[in-house]
Amino acid sequence: MVSDLINVRYLTGFTGSNAALLVFASTADPVLVTDSRYRIQASQQAPDLDTVIERAGSRHLVARAVAAGARRIGFESHVVTVDGFDALLTEIKGATEITGASDSAGRVGAELVRAPGIVEGLREVKDADEVALLGAAAAAANAALTALVAGGGLRPGRTERAVARELESLMLDHGAETRAFETIVATGANSAVPHHRPTDAVLTRGDFVKIDFGAVVAGYHSDMTRTFVLGAAADWQRDLYGLVAQAQRAGVAALEPGARLSEVDGAARRVIADAGFGENFGHGLGHGVGLQIHEAPGINSASGGTLRAGSVVTVEPGVYLPDRGGVRIEDTLVAGRQGPEQLTRFPKDLAIV
Amino acid sequence: MVSDLINVRYLTGFTGSNAALLVFASTADPVLVTDSRYRIQASQQAPDLDTVIERAGSRHLVARAVAAGARRIGFESHVVTVDGFDALLTEIKGATEITGASDSAGRVGAELVRAPGIVEGLREVKDADEVALLGAAAAAANAALTALVAGGGLRPGRTERAVARELESLMLDHGAETRAFETIVATGANSAVPHHRPTDAVLTRGDFVKIDFGAVVAGYHSDMTRTFVLGAAADWQRDLYGLVAQAQRAGVAALEPGARLSEVDGAARRVIADAGFGENFGHGLGHGVGLQIHEAPGINSASGGTLRAGSVVTVEPGVYLPDRGGVRIEDTLVAGRQGPEQLTRFPKDLAIV
Repeated sequence: MVSDLINVRYLTGFTGSNAALLVFASTADPVLVTDSRYRIQASQQAPDLDTVIERAGSRHLVARAVAAGARRIGFESHVVTVDGFDALLTEIKGATEITGASDSAGRVGAELVRAPGIVEGLREVKDADEVALLGAAAAAANAALTALVAGGGLRPGRTERAVARELESLMLDHGAETRAFETIVATGANSAVPHHRPTDAVLTRGDFVKIDFGAVVAGYHSDMTRTFVLGAAADWQRDLYGLVAQAQRAGVAALEPGARLSEVDGAARRVIADAGFGENFGHGLGHGVGLQIHEAPGINSASGGTLRAGSVVTVEPGVYLPDRGGVRIEDTLVAGRQGPEQLTRFPKDLAIV
Repeated sequence: MVSDLINVRYLTGFTGSNAALLVFASTADPVLVTDSRYRIQASQQAPDLDTVIERAGSRHLVARAVAAGARRIGFESHVVTVDGFDALLTEIKGATEITGASDSAGRVGAELVRAPGIVEGLREVKDADEVALLGAAAAAANAALTALVAGGGLRPGRTERAVARELESLMLDHGAETRAFETIVATGANSAVPHHRPTDAVLTRGDFVKIDFGAVVAGYHSDMTRTFVLGAAADWQRDLYGLVAQAQRAGVAALEPGARLSEVDGAARRVIADAGFGENFGHGLGHGVGLQIHEAPGINSASGGTLRAGSVVTVEPGVYLPDRGGVRIEDTLVAGRQGPEQLTRFPKDLAIV
């Protein structure tokens, strides 16, 4: 039983905000459940599926599985809450009473089995259609940032908020259906806050301006960060930018299928640590991107596992100097046997605008 | 232990995307935990709180509670997943081994206790500051729709998508920090889809145009739906609109503190059912609005409990005729002893534009 909405979308194409899916190990047809708000939408997006309109969807599916004779029902234990699980247990007891399902020893017939991350594992490797959509999302973001810079959108006197808004508008102009997340525009000392939200702070000559943003096309996300300098770069800014760029190249170079994910992180992190800024790079190197802006695999020092061919991931080292400023450079790339393919193609030289 | 991010925000003001909060029943100081991305932001948004930087926040807090001698640790069982709960249990065992906490019978000392919905219950009743912010969000939305209509934004030949985009842009012009949710603009037969996403469908003379949208101010949401007719209304459109308007008035009139929530729903639903359209009103009458667009209390036929004074809720009956069109009229209101206060103030007469 699939409860996660993105997982349901991946498997069925249905995008409603209430859904669950039952997939049988046998050849029995899968069952989609949603509520009455989505009756028409479900028939359009998943016309071939048996769709049930029922508010308590997961409970309905569990009862249905038991009625169909299922003895083991896998559920997404990383998604289903403790209370949700209690409700499923109650439902199973009800369902087994109704159907009389029990084994030869008289025990109730169905067991709920933890089955976390199965669909996320499928989603981790993208097929050609998905890569095309991820590329289209990245292209929309690239085109928007290009237009922003070409139009003089990054100029002293504007607020972070105004820049973010124009960039988001330009993404829509260039084919995005929406933004991938709230656009980060961080100027001056604000650039030292990794996940700064745009404020009325004014872009000022000499500032770092860090922009982290993405577009969505057909549900697929892009993610890119570029850091600019307004007017003229000081030596410390050139040095810092050069260091992060070097770390980013090292991270990208480490993106080989089969590589340990923690080692991909380490390849970039060592560059920064060796320069004495290890404490100023507090987040992981990257993450998978797809139907969610953050999905498997995570790429950080604690990551288990290895990089799979066909994964689409970010590589985004950053160095943040509190009260001075920070630099992050981030691309979204496809891991492949012929080397990584970079989807986010905006130039990465230190741009003085 | 509070795991839900909105609940953490409500209690602390901290808005990062990774957070958990430990609040003691004793006078011990609460502890906020987040990761390194939010170090600066946490110190700005919650300067008085003891803040710990730790990636596995909930596990850290449980261990800390045990170390502080806690014997019963309430957790949000409606938020914590089955896997998350397993991790907390593992952590408790580790923590009790380290601290040696056990009772006189030698059992491990700390128990995880289901404590769902406690903060949501606090959030259900809004104080004056919250109502002011909800009013500001509604005012931004009202101003945007007023400007859209005054500027001729609702005219034949435009696409749903173009209208939605202009309305969202106008909300930002009028003080919104972002949209409350993806704006619904549904024209013609699309208006029969309760939660339609804007497409390239073109507004046409004679269409119903249903617009469901909201603004966010300081984290607080507004929610309003208006349905227009383009050009000239047919008799069936006037009749349908009149019926939904009558149902909406009945729902608003039923918003008395102490009223059963299912009865508030019933007051509006009976009007529609008596006219023979019960099957065409498939969703609940309304929901609470605050830091989330959907929060407690739910107002539908299955709701338990009663309406509390100070709740802010929507009243949004709709009738949807497949392949023809639908009408929904929705306001956000404060339930009070002197009668409901309507925050969403755009006129509700059938508007022919």
